[in-house]
Amino acid sequence: MAMNKNVYLDNSATTPVAPEVLEAMIPFFQSRYGNASSLHSEGRDARRAVEESRALIAEHLKVHPSEIVFTSGATEADNLALLGTALRSTGGHLITSRIEHDAVRHSADWLASRGYDVTLLEVDEFGRVSADDVREAIRPDTMLVSVMAGNNEVGTIQPIRAIGEICRERSVPFHTDAVQAYGKIELPMDVIDMLSVSAHKLHGPKGVGFLYVRKGTKLTPLLHGGGHEHGRRSGTENVPGIVGLGVATQIAFEERDRVTQRMEGFREYLIQEVLKLPATRLNGHPTESLPHIANFSFEAIEGESLIMKLDEHHIATSTGSACSSPNLEPSHVLVALGVPLSMAHGSLRVSTGRQTMQDDIDALLKALPIVVQELRDMSPFKVGG
Amino acid sequence: MAMNKNVYLDNSATTPVAPEVLEAMIPFFQSRYGNASSLHSEGRDARRAVEESRALIAEHLKVHPSEIVFTSGATEADNLALLGTALRSTGGHLITSRIEHDAVRHSADWLASRGYDVTLLEVDEFGRVSADDVREAIRPDTMLVSVMAGNNEVGTIQPIRAIGEICRERSVPFHTDAVQAYGKIELPMDVIDMLSVSAHKLHGPKGVGFLYVRKGTKLTPLLHGGGHEHGRRSGTENVPGIVGLGVATQIAFEERDRVTQRMEGFREYLIQEVLKLPATRLNGHPTESLPHIANFSFEAIEGESLIMKLDEHHIATSTGSACSSPNLEPSHVLVALGVPLSMAHGSLRVSTGRQTMQDDIDALLKALPIVVQELRDMSPFKVGG
Repeated sequence: MAMNKNVYLDNSATTPVAPEVLEAMIPFFQSRYGNASSLHSEGRDARRAVEESRALIAEHLKVHPSEIVFTSGATEADNLALLGTALRSTGGHLITSRIEHDAVRHSADWLASRGYDVTLLEVDEFGRVSADDVREAIRPDTMLVSVMAGNNEVGTIQPIRAIGEICRERSVPFHTDAVQAYGKIELPMDVIDMLSVSAHKLHGPKGVGFLYVRKGTKLTPLLHGGGHEHGRRSGTENVPGIVGLGVATQIAFEERDRVTQRMEGFREYLIQEVLKLPATRLNGHPTESLPHIANFSFEAIEGESLIMKLDEHHIATSTGSACSSPNLEPSHVLVALGVPLSMAHGSLRVSTGRQTMQDDIDALLKALPIVVQELRDMSPFKVGG
Repeated sequence: MAMNKNVYLDNSATTPVAPEVLEAMIPFFQSRYGNASSLHSEGRDARRAVEESRALIAEHLKVHPSEIVFTSGATEADNLALLGTALRSTGGHLITSRIEHDAVRHSADWLASRGYDVTLLEVDEFGRVSADDVREAIRPDTMLVSVMAGNNEVGTIQPIRAIGEICRERSVPFHTDAVQAYGKIELPMDVIDMLSVSAHKLHGPKGVGFLYVRKGTKLTPLLHGGGHEHGRRSGTENVPGIVGLGVATQIAFEERDRVTQRMEGFREYLIQEVLKLPATRLNGHPTESLPHIANFSFEAIEGESLIMKLDEHHIATSTGSACSSPNLEPSHVLVALGVPLSMAHGSLRVSTGRQTMQDDIDALLKALPIVVQELRDMSPFKVGG
């Protein structure tokens, strides 16, 4: 491997845009630049491209195209699901979990600050929500249950079908943040009412995503204006972005079996090798996990120092969510899993993409023991102390 | 001119991305794809690009970089200004005008439906808001005044400095939607507290824009999550889009004198020639106008038929705002100007861009009399009847 080739193992933060995706987008910046709401040929051409992308995504999810609402990304999709449901009334009850992405968690916090009741479901040591807990938490005034499909920091997959069935039984809308799960695992769309997706986690462009909204689900819009997306999300359609999201979806679904099998192989190998290092643990579920995420903790090490040291070896990884990187608090996910504080500060998330090769994994496994030893030698804390 | 070259005179709906803009964006889809919140080299590289773009924009507006909040576009920026101000309380008073873009108008409508008081300022026959009316409308509980800088349908420029000075005097925050004005006319930033901008109206990409927020202006965020943009707008930064917006800004400001002078020439020539047709009027102000917009009405003609007929001649224009195209109501702007209904239905907006050539104007002026005559011959209404 050439010295300058970086090893990118932070695909849960963002992914390189697939060449096929960029190629499909380019014409919509150049000659096919119409506004999809314009009546003339240029506008109708853009409209067709938007609707073809919508139809493609709907086909892969086995839903109706009119149920796909394009947004600026998953943060907006999550906010639309939570705030769009809650702001229809001036109060009410929402259920979510302790390990949600900040886009769900802080939307729920904001609603709580405005007088809504929010129940935060606990998780077990592997980060699993219990479907029975969901059943017990539902009240007559529950407006929404929001539990993510697969966790972005530790990879744990939730019992989405069981949770969805309970919500259905009790006629409570069920939202799931599927940012990391989309295109990776099967999603039980028959019991999901709303589902958030981001393009840039899937080798699509940043700045675009969608919220699946089951027909009949009532939402007040977050963005008011020209009435785009059938009045559910105003703003000129990001045509190149939407086209890119469509192609990224197609690639992800078509390649899914092959790519996820390779990712699972990488994950198993990583777990086997990393756990050989002393005073190390795997965070999350050993098997009920997204294929592309493995999260480890190293005693007596600061996660951020580990990331920076690996970066010196030209290896890109993260401590957890990129979205909370500037925050020095231990990860709310690891705290919810009950990871001891001595371990919660020393976490490493390794996440693979469709471009990841065995070479990349080998480079990490070569550098990691060196870096861990260096940091432990410098640490004021003693391993096992 | 070759038969297939389309004449694009709908630059107020959207613009082709400038080649320099696309060229600057491409690397951020490919090799420089990092998440700007990641700690590693790829992340820091993306962060630098975002902050350089922010600094570039701030420099051209003569504001501080920290006052620029990147959004998914102007609709989000407008919503953030209005809802972000209003939702800090459970009630209060907002002042806006009858001729705002739907993103402001429908945000105000939504707030009104939730119990806020909204005053809609009237405009004169040219579409001008009176600064005195603003002064009279301000109450002790007024939370915000929002008046657009230049109208998107008829081009009329508002007395923004006078309105801003009154707001300053009365300590009421002043927001202006500058989507059409940015890069075209001088903006009195010293009296503006918030200002909305969209990239795709300015030869930048769709799906990105910003809200200028003067230091000290209090807003509750619309999108909650990872705390991006200093907690004012969460969501992974659209790095290629933000880079594109920076380059588009630079081009617009550097070329402004030359490009707007050419646009003014086109506008004067268009007005002179179009008004030679019988039963035709100019909508908006003859001189206090954005340089790139001219709006005409043709008696006894449906605007949509006119657009479609011109489209057959490979000329792209619009009746007014692309955002309300699917709506068959007469334009709320033309109604507010007091344009008679017989005329309000037959409007044509011609809007030029940096790529517009005299050939394009000539092609329109050649086709227009033919098309107008054809439609009038078919019309059940009689001109002057």
